Amino acid sequence: MAHFINPKAEEILDKEFKVLNHGFVRLVDYMGGDDAIVQAARVSYGKGTKTVSEDRTLIRYLMRHQHTTPFEMVEFKFHVKLPIFVARQWIRHRTANVNEYSGRYSIMPEEFYVPDETAIKFQSKSNKQGRDSEEVPPEVRKRVLDILIEEQKSAFSGYQEMLDQNIARELARINLPLSLYTQWYWKIDLHNLFHFLKLRMDKNAQYEIRMYAEKMAEIVKSVVPLAYEAFEDYVLNAVTFSKQELQLLKKYLPQNIEEKEMEEFNFSRYEKAEFLDKLKKISQL
Amino acid sequence: MAHFINPKAEEILDKEFKVLNHGFVRLVDYMGGDDAIVQAARVSYGKGTKTVSEDRTLIRYLMRHQHTTPFEMVEFKFHVKLPIFVARQWIRHRTANVNEYSGRYSIMPEEFYVPDETAIKFQSKSNKQGRDSEEVPPEVRKRVLDILIEEQKSAFSGYQEMLDQNIARELARINLPLSLYTQWYWKIDLHNLFHFLKLRMDKNAQYEIRMYAEKMAEIVKSVVPLAYEAFEDYVLNAVTFSKQELQLLKKYLPQNIEEKEMEEFNFSRYEKAEFLDKLKKISQL
Amino acid sequence: MAHFINPKAEEILDKEFKVLNHGFVRLVDYMGGDDAIVQAARVSYGKGTKTVSEDRTLIRYLMRHQHTTPFEMVEFKFHVKLPIFVARQWIRHRTANVNEYSGRYSIMPEEFYVPDETAIKFQSKSNKQGRDSEEVPPEVRKRVLDILIEEQKSAFSGYQEMLDQNIARELARINLPLSLYTQWYWKIDLHNLFHFLKLRMDKNAQYEIRMYAEKMAEIVKSVVPLAYEAFEDYVLNAVTFSKQELQLLKKYLPQNIEEKEMEEFNFSRYEKAEFLDKLKKISQL
Amino acid sequence: MAHFINPKAEEILDKEFKVLNHGFVRLVDYMGGDDAIVQAARVSYGKGTKTVSEDRTLIRYLMRHQHTTPFEMVEFKFHVKLPIFVARQWIRHRTANVNEYSGRYSIMPEEFYVPDETAIKFQSKSNKQGRDSEEVPPEVRKRVLDILIEEQKSAFSGYQEMLDQNIARELARINLPLSLYTQWYWKIDLHNLFHFLKLRMDKNAQYEIRMYAEKMAEIVKSVVPLAYEAFEDYVLNAVTFSKQELQLLKKYLPQNIEEKEMEEFNFSRYEKAEFLDKLKKISQL
Repeated sequence: MAHFINPKAEEILDKEFKVLNHGFVRLVDYMGGDDAIVQAARVSYGKGTKTVSEDRTLIRYLMRHQHTTPFEMVEFKFHVKLPIFVARQWIRHRTANVNEYSGRYSIMPEEFYVPDETAIKFQSKSNKQGRDSEEVPPEVRKRVLDILIEEQKSAFSGYQEMLDQNIARELARINLPLSLYTQWYWKIDLHNLFHFLKLRMDKNAQYEIRMYAEKMAEIVKSVVPLAYEAFEDYVLNAVTFSKQELQLLKKYLPQNIEEKEMEEFNFSRYEKAEFLDKLKKISQL
Repeated sequence: MAHFINPKAEEILDKEFKVLNHGFVRLVDYMGGDDAIVQAARVSYGKGTKTVSEDRTLIRYLMRHQHTTPFEMVEFKFHVKLPIFVARQWIRHRTANVNEYSGRYSIMPEEFYVPDETAIKFQSKSNKQGRDSEEVPPEVRKRVLDILIEEQKSAFSGYQEMLDQNIARELARINLPLSLYTQWYWKIDLHNLFHFLKLRMDKNAQYEIRMYAEKMAEIVKSVVPLAYEAFEDYVLNAVTFSKQELQLLKKYLPQNIEEKEMEEFNFSRYEKAEFLDKLKKISQL
Repeated sequence: MAHFINPKAEEILDKEFKVLNHGFVRLVDYMGGDDAIVQAARVSYGKGTKTVSEDRTLIRYLMRHQHTTPFEMVEFKFHVKLPIFVARQWIRHRTANVNEYSGRYSIMPEEFYVPDETAIKFQSKSNKQGRDSEEVPPEVRKRVLDILIEEQKSAFSGYQEMLDQNIARELARINLPLSLYTQWYWKIDLHNLFHFLKLRMDKNAQYEIRMYAEKMAEIVKSVVPLAYEAFEDYVLNAVTFSKQELQLLKKYLPQNIEEKEMEEFNFSRYEKAEFLDKLKKISQL
Repeated sequence: MAHFINPKAEEILDKEFKVLNHGFVRLVDYMGGDDAIVQAARVSYGKGTKTVSEDRTLIRYLMRHQHTTPFEMVEFKFHVKLPIFVARQWIRHRTANVNEYSGRYSIMPEEFYVPDETAIKFQSKSNKQGRDSEEVPPEVRKRVLDILIEEQKSAFSGYQEMLDQNIARELARINLPLSLYTQWYWKIDLHNLFHFLKLRMDKNAQYEIRMYAEKMAEIVKSVVPLAYEAFEDYVLNAVTFSKQELQLLKKYLPQNIEEKEMEEFNFSRYEKAEFLDKLKKISQL
């Protein structure tokens, strides 16, 4: 048996997918694919037959029931170029491996994040941590861009001058702004990557990291299409109702659903039973 | 300022709560309580006022939005006595600290798990990994208990004989059955403890580990009542619907809910908006 | 660019390497090799030239200085069949991914660990957790084997009878002995694998897990020869002296070493300086 | 039994220990002390007597043999105020819990790290990542300080202007320099804290993070004096020689040491045997 080759991954391997003005995401290496999830799950649950449709059913079952360990058997390694303020949010995901470009060893290149005009927004009124959707007048945008660009230039020229004076690199860099680009290798398993995507594709995530998450989601989708589809159906596009919300909704929700009503929605046999269980649970709240 | 003392925790500290026939759970130490969650969250989100009702609202907000890091600031240390087959499921929770009694250093005491008669069940017909609810005839139960007890005696007598021959303890123990009791210190933060409880209080968890999880849930509830209440409302008693289920339910669900209809369910201001957002999201599926 | 192929890994991929009487270790998949370590390190430290001898020097530098993150960029996935008492020690290494055969879903096959006669030893007199080296008389060995084998048969026959009675698998299995074989997929990065090997190849590790560790070390050595060589020189065959030991040894150790005396030991330029630093540090204790 | 109170910890609880120009470290809470290490170890190794001198011997044994799990049973929670470039190095320690002040929610105060004149150094000639020890001429230092302070002022005034324009906080902050102070709650177990201290008190660590590590080391030393002493003797002040270094040193090192020669160095009984084992191992290289 040869090493597992995933043709969908091979196609995009090493391609730079642009993000923001200077950033990119690049898939450097991977281990496994949908097959590896199924292979690992079958160690636990026994053999069974192995058609593609059964693989899909199994993967969806695992995702739905939070049997997360088989998803940990797939690994992705990315090369990412990103502004430091994005890197600071990203690094909070601890179950990953990182090698970052070091400003102690190396000289930082003069590359800064400057937002598109359309990404410049006012403080959100309803959300303490976000941006408003209202459009910002052109002259304000212009002023913001001027402030940002001018400051980036002057900060870098100070850095440059200290380097020219032979000041230690680890010290010369301390005034560089958070909008400076850094880069890193970032390796993570699929289960933890899905968790990253869930949090960082969320509308409450900062716009800039969301751009990275969305690009990576496309890559993940093409490398593990079955797992990604299950992630979409059971996580991204799912809705969780609290106990109180369910108590309110109880009067609207049916206590039972006819078999044939479920037909068109392509539920698996297990899924039907689980759905009816949920409705029953709610009716008893 | 003195060390944080949680009176509700102090009351139960060091008490043995019995589980199964010889097992127990005992809270050995703790760090923090509901207050510590709020304290940590306020580092991130800024000061604000600090009434108890606002603490509750904040904790519920954090739980609902999976802002999990403040819950990691509370720590529990348990002393647990449990059968080895339960320990094998338990140890899969990796984000915890463990010191287990060692059969290489010490002689294992002769204490085995023997199920209550009522816990002896047939293989489930619908669930590959579980027990049926159907009652098992008394003579079969009797036979099962005889097999278990007899085998436990004979395994321990073999162990004893090898120890008497001065065979290395690490070798003499290899035939001891999985029903033997072991014990350990187990330390975990509240976020990961909630995750443990969620998975191990689930009806699909094996009965024996569920007994431990339920006992620990009582302890947690008394030590961090606000956090536990939020866990019940937004996790334990919540229901998640998949994209397909929502497509089906769409026709039943209202697209909007009157403010006053939400009144009796005690939603916070944010919660109301989030609820309406969910309904809107569903109506657009 | 195509997916990284490591010819040394490809050769042994999927081969079963026998361990103990029924066990094995099998490399199922891998990501990266010595190259990937260098590639990740160069993100941090900048480009430089790339001859093989420079790769070796870099890898040795990283190992020596506990710059562990580049080693995390290489991943191994093993399929392992092992006795449960070995699995219980193994699983304590938390930074790994596991999918184990489940006795709740599936019927356990009748395969038990029975030690080679020569592996049967008395309790160590000097080491509370180990075996003595003294030979055990043949009649005692014989008795130990008889006890083990007889017990394994009777435990399995009890298991079989309960399964025949249709008792739930999760319950029927509770009396199975720790010498029963289980199996799992186990995935880990190279840094954590080295840590595992260090602890489990140690003479204080139990003989049975040491057999697995040694077999895996051979596999690792052939997949990442440069990293493994560094691991041998700077970890496995290194010696750490405590402050008190160094105070005693101070009078024996030289305060300096001539350049040409170091020549034959193939130190890199950095290594020479670091060595002299150590001697200087000791002379000042 | 009441909650474990460590009088040495209580004394310093909540005190701000100054670090750098505006930073501090503050012990907010803790769980356990030297006693908790011993307590956890005794679950594994059996009871035994419990004099203080035996506790010390046990703790030293655990440290020497890298039996790390009992040290994980002690927990520290710190409140730290630190420049962002220090936070970026710190956060690489993944086995910890963090809640950081958020520049998306809150306005960053105008507090910047400005180095002491004496901390301004040239790039090291021998160490790619460090500072030279050579003194920097006063006029160069002066120029560096001017660049830093001027830039900090202008960056903050740009930030202020954008906030005044009601630009979203998450965007306005992107040009703030890495020398800006942030703060966080940081919780970690003692084993991982020792690892942090080892790496960050090292002479190769950047000066600024070293100042924090050294302050925290003082705190740790006063809270767990026995564990810290063991850490000093077996880790901080220990020296590891590689295989090649030992081959060279072999001719200098004795093959044996008389019992009475070891007397004055206060070795435990085990330690003596281990020391002789090391010398024997080396003589056979």
